[in-house]
Amino acid sequence: MGVSPCENPDVNAANCPSRSVLEHVTSRWGVLLLARLLGEESLRFSELRRSIGGISEKMLAQTLQTLERDGFVRREARPVIPPHVDYSLTPLGEEAARQVWDLARWVERSLPEVLATQRRYDERRRKAAATTG
Amino acid sequence: MGVSPCENPDVNAANCPSRSVLEHVTSRWGVLLLARLLGEESLRFSELRRSIGGISEKMLAQTLQTLERDGFVRREARPVIPPHVDYSLTPLGEEAARQVWDLARWVERSLPEVLATQRRYDERRRKAAATTG
Repeated sequence: MGVSPCENPDVNAANCPSRSVLEHVTSRWGVLLLARLLGEESLRFSELRRSIGGISEKMLAQTLQTLERDGFVRREARPVIPPHVDYSLTPLGEEAARQVWDLARWVERSLPEVLATQRRYDERRRKAAATTG
Repeated sequence: MGVSPCENPDVNAANCPSRSVLEHVTSRWGVLLLARLLGEESLRFSELRRSIGGISEKMLAQTLQTLERDGFVRREARPVIPPHVDYSLTPLGEEAARQVWDLARWVERSLPEVLATQRRYDERRRKAAATTG
């Protein structure tokens, strides 16, 4: 294993590579892809595309490649007829996926509380604007 | 508490508001801000600005406002001389922050393994390009 260019990895340091890796894992599509692959033996490109609403082919391919390069996703071309490509999590990717899966479920559970807070916030701003205006 | 427009919140649905909330929590600066506030009673704008490498005033203000509107961050203007504004986590924000803190530390720990994998990946691509080219 090579030497890391970051002696003490720190995501708060603008030029530490750990920050870009964190961004890959937490990117819009990265989060959803990792979470979708969790608990699956493998999924095809087309299955991933269908199950993540709004993702384009280009963004799916690009995100999968980034996650493969980081060692979170394994890509296997199946030389069958018709040929297809399978994607699965590596052990390291599974660790990442479990965390973003938990986070996604937590956000879904917290949604009613968040939406209620957003409404109160917007209401306060509207009133403040009306008073000042 | 109002009714959520999303009967069954699902981040994989393109138009479910849970997806944008997940994006606020996992955004580049959202992650770092939440993690930075964890374990602190409160921090001033200038303290946050200094401790997160590369963040601009504009992005800091914008991210804090998004997190305040969602109910993750509390903003308190102190009417002292000179006046200043304190930011702290709400109980809900603390739940989010703990998760992204764990994720950030995990990425930092995993960095050597990720960088080694990236090098092997790039090497394979170089060789493949040399063979085809």
